[in-house]
Amino acid sequence: MDIKSKRIAILAPVAWRTPPRAYGAWETVASNITEGLVARGWEDVTLFATKESITSAKLEALIERGYEEDRTQIPKVSECLHISYCLQRADEFDLIHNNFDYLPLTYLPFIKTPMLTTIHGFSSPDILRVYRNYKDTYYVSISDSDRDKELPYLATVYNGIDLSNITLRETAGDKLVFLGRIHPDKGAHLAIEVAKMCDKDLIIAGIIQDQAYFDNLLKPHINDSSIQYIGPVNPVQRDALFKETYTVLHLNTIPERFGLVMAEAMAASVPVIAMDLGSCREVIADGQTGYLVNNVDEAVEAVDKIGRLDRKKCRQRVEENFTIDHMVSNYEKVYEEIFRREAQKEQKFAAR
Amino acid sequence: MDIKSKRIAILAPVAWRTPPRAYGAWETVASNITEGLVARGWEDVTLFATKESITSAKLEALIERGYEEDRTQIPKVSECLHISYCLQRADEFDLIHNNFDYLPLTYLPFIKTPMLTTIHGFSSPDILRVYRNYKDTYYVSISDSDRDKELPYLATVYNGIDLSNITLRETAGDKLVFLGRIHPDKGAHLAIEVAKMCDKDLIIAGIIQDQAYFDNLLKPHINDSSIQYIGPVNPVQRDALFKETYTVLHLNTIPERFGLVMAEAMAASVPVIAMDLGSCREVIADGQTGYLVNNVDEAVEAVDKIGRLDRKKCRQRVEENFTIDHMVSNYEKVYEEIFRREAQKEQKFAAR
Repeated sequence: MDIKSKRIAILAPVAWRTPPRAYGAWETVASNITEGLVARGWEDVTLFATKESITSAKLEALIERGYEEDRTQIPKVSECLHISYCLQRADEFDLIHNNFDYLPLTYLPFIKTPMLTTIHGFSSPDILRVYRNYKDTYYVSISDSDRDKELPYLATVYNGIDLSNITLRETAGDKLVFLGRIHPDKGAHLAIEVAKMCDKDLIIAGIIQDQAYFDNLLKPHINDSSIQYIGPVNPVQRDALFKETYTVLHLNTIPERFGLVMAEAMAASVPVIAMDLGSCREVIADGQTGYLVNNVDEAVEAVDKIGRLDRKKCRQRVEENFTIDHMVSNYEKVYEEIFRREAQKEQKFAAR
Repeated sequence: MDIKSKRIAILAPVAWRTPPRAYGAWETVASNITEGLVARGWEDVTLFATKESITSAKLEALIERGYEEDRTQIPKVSECLHISYCLQRADEFDLIHNNFDYLPLTYLPFIKTPMLTTIHGFSSPDILRVYRNYKDTYYVSISDSDRDKELPYLATVYNGIDLSNITLRETAGDKLVFLGRIHPDKGAHLAIEVAKMCDKDLIIAGIIQDQAYFDNLLKPHINDSSIQYIGPVNPVQRDALFKETYTVLHLNTIPERFGLVMAEAMAASVPVIAMDLGSCREVIADGQTGYLVNNVDEAVEAVDKIGRLDRKKCRQRVEENFTIDHMVSNYEKVYEEIFRREAQKEQKFAAR
């Protein structure tokens, strides 16, 4: 049986539409996996997401809209209804690819279909209690650095991005750009420091996740000229922003799990300056597609020399590592390994 | 087969120990049901609660301590692990009595054992989405007033309280007492108004659930003499408090679901003045064991006349309606009805 005729369910989160209108990293990846599988000839792919989601696969949905887009919803209510809706149909699939989070794992004792969980991030150390409680299942990490030592991972599969959304910019713009969630973890406040020390203009784009942080550490510096905040950007706006970009400042203050934004910038040929924390050194080729730094001073030095890099190498690195096709091809290998192991289990069971 | 040899699992919440050290209304009821079943001769009762819980039934636990007593825990993590731990053993029981909340319902499609859910309250209208999604199961309401019109209830079973914890106080104390969560819903601020208008001392006891409410509406009035706040009380402290109590002021601002506190006060022969909202008129016999009022002025009038009531009738009303034995005897009838319906289903299935 051709592996591509296996029946695959992709379980997406229901915080946002899949794909999201603007922000929504996990929904973006869930969409990219789904569309990538269809593009690579998989015949029976079903996306479980919100009702208004858009896909070329089959869509199955119980929840009308993302709970982040409709604040009358209690997230937990939508989450557990959505997960149960998907998993009670487990028998209709050969594999469930969970891009949700830890809650679906607690339904594992009740289903026979194997589940692959891509761990998109540990939002708190406490959620490890769930992952560690279910070790007889399949896990993928999104970078080698974002791994828990106790969990049995099958592989690391880097996130892939949709290059058709991103124009290759052969010549550099003149702005420093921060792109990401407005949250201390992502270090927009450090980008402001760097911009001031370099005397360069900075554009900050992203959804505000920590209003107090924004009000106290960013807002006092925003002047609508040298330091601008333009709110969240959708893919079209983001692509236009890269035209103006000299370099992206990704001065994360905690280990990065993957860092979609870095790959997106490089796809537009924009080099990236990132803190050497977590996965950044897996995404950026240091000294070739950007620089890894350890503090603001090093970031300022990096801005000085980043113009000398060969911008073509940025796009090239993405094409060779971080496309949807690469990601899905890597997931195909993981799926194949899961089917192999499941068949082995069945043989063992039959031999008894 | 004697119904009392059926295997019953009681699923308690894991916010607090079962029974709780002080506050923890749902855990209290779960404990009372469990102990009540054992006392009435049920042979095979298993309590699913935190590991440090105390029961004369069998205890099964995965979660060490209540998440409200150990703030390093993410509640959702402990909840889903606990529920999954219980329900994956569903086949070992003839009935699962869910005292948790809505999350266990989303595991219903995966288990064959019937589940009875006592709906202890609708914390938000949005959780009705879950209850309404699972109508082919069994529900009990804790008062006739706390019902959703779309749900198929088997019965109302009033909460029962442990009379052995409560001393009958033949003579009245001289304090007004507020006992309950410090939250606008429970109306401690109205109790303060009444106390000032009556020129009587007020003791406020209970866990602070809304700190801003406490700081803004209660704290300015607390003077450690005429208006005291003594924090949360455990059953022993509560019993001592009733000795000093003239009447309990229960001036809830939203419909009461049941109102354990009113029954506990009446058990000590303390009459209660309550807002005529929700279940209060089901618990209090108006004009006999307390007064139902509609506003602060009526509450002040009620304080004036409450000394004339026959305090014996308070205890009597509890003995006749709100004991653990009454509650459990009513649950026995519900269990019996469930077993009858399940047997019918099996017969129909076998007849096909």
